Amino acid sequence: MAGKLTETDLKPVAGGGLLDRRLLLKGGMVLASAQAAGSLSAAETKNAAPLDPADPPWLHHTGGPFTTYGLPSRYEKYVIRNIGGNRTPSGDGVSWTPLEDLAGIVTPSGLHFERHHDGVPDIDPTLHRLVIHGLVGKPLEFTVEDLLRYPMQSRFLFIECGGNSNAGWHSEPIQRPVGAFHGLVSCSEWTGVPLSILLDEAGVDATASWVIAEGADAGLLNVSLPLSKLAADAMLGLYQNGERLRPENGYPLRLIVPGWEGITNVKWLRRLHVTDQPAMTRNETAKYTELLPSGKARMFTFVMDAKSLITSPSPGQKMYGPNIYEIRGLAWSGRGRIAKVEVSADGGKTWAEAHLQEPVMAHCFTRFRAPWAWDGKPSILKSRATDETGYVQPERDVLVKERGREGYFHYNAIVSWAVDEDGEITHVYA
Amino acid sequence: MAGKLTETDLKPVAGGGLLDRRLLLKGGMVLASAQAAGSLSAAETKNAAPLDPADPPWLHHTGGPFTTYGLPSRYEKYVIRNIGGNRTPSGDGVSWTPLEDLAGIVTPSGLHFERHHDGVPDIDPTLHRLVIHGLVGKPLEFTVEDLLRYPMQSRFLFIECGGNSNAGWHSEPIQRPVGAFHGLVSCSEWTGVPLSILLDEAGVDATASWVIAEGADAGLLNVSLPLSKLAADAMLGLYQNGERLRPENGYPLRLIVPGWEGITNVKWLRRLHVTDQPAMTRNETAKYTELLPSGKARMFTFVMDAKSLITSPSPGQKMYGPNIYEIRGLAWSGRGRIAKVEVSADGGKTWAEAHLQEPVMAHCFTRFRAPWAWDGKPSILKSRATDETGYVQPERDVLVKERGREGYFHYNAIVSWAVDEDGEITHVYA
Repeated sequence: MAGKLTETDLKPVAGGGLLDRRLLLKGGMVLASAQAAGSLSAAETKNAAPLDPADPPWLHHTGGPFTTYGLPSRYEKYVIRNIGGNRTPSGDGVSWTPLEDLAGIVTPSGLHFERHHDGVPDIDPTLHRLVIHGLVGKPLEFTVEDLLRYPMQSRFLFIECGGNSNAGWHSEPIQRPVGAFHGLVSCSEWTGVPLSILLDEAGVDATASWVIAEGADAGLLNVSLPLSKLAADAMLGLYQNGERLRPENGYPLRLIVPGWEGITNVKWLRRLHVTDQPAMTRNETAKYTELLPSGKARMFTFVMDAKSLITSPSPGQKMYGPNIYEIRGLAWSGRGRIAKVEVSADGGKTWAEAHLQEPVMAHCFTRFRAPWAWDGKPSILKSRATDETGYVQPERDVLVKERGREGYFHYNAIVSWAVDEDGEITHVYA
Repeated sequence: MAGKLTETDLKPVAGGGLLDRRLLLKGGMVLASAQAAGSLSAAETKNAAPLDPADPPWLHHTGGPFTTYGLPSRYEKYVIRNIGGNRTPSGDGVSWTPLEDLAGIVTPSGLHFERHHDGVPDIDPTLHRLVIHGLVGKPLEFTVEDLLRYPMQSRFLFIECGGNSNAGWHSEPIQRPVGAFHGLVSCSEWTGVPLSILLDEAGVDATASWVIAEGADAGLLNVSLPLSKLAADAMLGLYQNGERLRPENGYPLRLIVPGWEGITNVKWLRRLHVTDQPAMTRNETAKYTELLPSGKARMFTFVMDAKSLITSPSPGQKMYGPNIYEIRGLAWSGRGRIAKVEVSADGGKTWAEAHLQEPVMAHCFTRFRAPWAWDGKPSILKSRATDETGYVQPERDVLVKERGREGYFHYNAIVSWAVDEDGEITHVYA
């Protein structure tokens, strides 16, 4: 077992009391609950069987029955998706993943964020068809049963809405829990058929360069995607976190485009039209484009750039006095693996490298942690992600200077939390 | 994109038509759905908007609402845990994970297997306490809130009941779907506090060698565990697949003992009694021990040895004629990483190495796949796992010779599926 902490262990490696990340592996961070761990009360030593009437009820009678499909404890009923966004027309809006309540890198499917334009279709899988046509040698039509017979792959991948975190463009910092600000991103183990196999089977023409993907929702939502990306690493998602994917995530079939904005991961996929130019649909012209200060607009900005945020401590939570804390957060990049996450407790003057939980995978959430000795004084916490391409998550002022504030989409600036002397935490631009 | 299959690609690497696993990475396994992919019907080409009254209803009206916590499609309502085992006394039994319906390595929490002795306690986390006492310098008592402040780690780990697959000891091969035979094993991303940190804080005496772990169910289920293992890599599990763990999996707190039999992963953990000898409780003497041919019994057989099984094709499923199939299955080992999985289509005469899906992690499910050209003739499929220690999953006759057939626990022999000329699949001893 690891020993107790030494003076050296407690020597900060950056301003504001940030400690060496290796401390987390050493163990012995007993200060983390100094006031939590007391000596055993008489009541507790007595707690050894035989039981006492004072013991909690569940020790006194046999518990509940077996269930065919389990659900969270009733004591966790407040850990839910926060439904918001534009509510008209009906079916057009979002629900947010409560990132502040979660741990690890897997988002439970029941809490995966939602972004629908026309509600959630209730699709009978035996009636659903996927069609691949256009510039192909042999147009193809597949039932779901057909697709389940193809070779499959599994990948842990995040999906993030292109509009996630867009409150960051506001002139004043929004005060919300992390999930209701940045929670249009979730991460699952997706299993499905590599799209390249089906494109091979259809025989794509040499003149083809784009694919128009269409969903089976009432609005027939469609987007144009470069053939090269789809052939490189896209897949037809059939399973999410081990089971068939959920209706709100595209049941029975969803396009999975690793690292690219959520809308390209077309749900309820019914058609792949191979062509030689984009369709210039509503969702790639009127929306999901970004007006720049120059007056020009960025279009087809598919890749989600590297991003990170601290989920604990975070707004809505409260510090419990000067102590050693474990700063926890998430980082991800649409360009590949996260190479490094740094945290700052002095508003970005100095930084300490955070510990990354293995496995660190491309286009997947990476959980980071860093030990912090908070002295009870006002502090500003930040996290900064660097991905394997060398891309570094920008400070907000840099992002705003480059993009202006009309862009609305693809906000990935460094997030700052202010901790005051009362342990209250707020979102600040700093 | 990958090209079409060549003669070389289709040259078997083992008897019964097993093909080279690299074929799965090459793509172009179009034969897998030769009869599935036809040319586009008039109805399908017509399917481009505008819609036709003949199109399915979900294309004609806005779909369902956003939900705060999602559930599987109603069309998947038969994918459930299969409740079985001894039903008296109430609360004593099992429910099985439907392994044949799942993909990837994550088991959805709602389908994680259950093994309870006294039902599922409905625990109020604010009233729950964990006590560490006995041969320690300072007995400790923790609330759940206290524990949530400690440094955490996340690990993808399987948990397998020591009695899983025990129908394999029967004299005749049981005919059931894979899940109802081998489904007392599941795999989750567990997040919690390394136990070594709390043992350090309590200050374990030099004379201590065992820990008696006790749960907060009505039976106060307890087991004795070597201190060395708990200090090495055990953790207090607080989260499962991202969210707080489910009531049937130990909410609010479970002991996680990587690679060791399920009962050691004590649910609803309330007490860790540090001592210098095992308690010799009912669950380590009358049960969870194995009578050997010699008349002696194996006790404290904690580690789950390497095991694998083919989930598709498997009993209850049906072949769809001579074709190229992807054989899919799961492998795991309580001793570390899976190093290799081999599959046989000729009853074990010859073997081909299967492709292992990354990431391959210690004490975690590993998904394997192998391409198979089935010629329509009777075949016997097997899989054989080898772990990083060099341990090889044994044939059934070898296991039975060593352990006899009264052992009941720790059955991990090679599993054999017979495929007949009609494509029916049965469990056989071969």
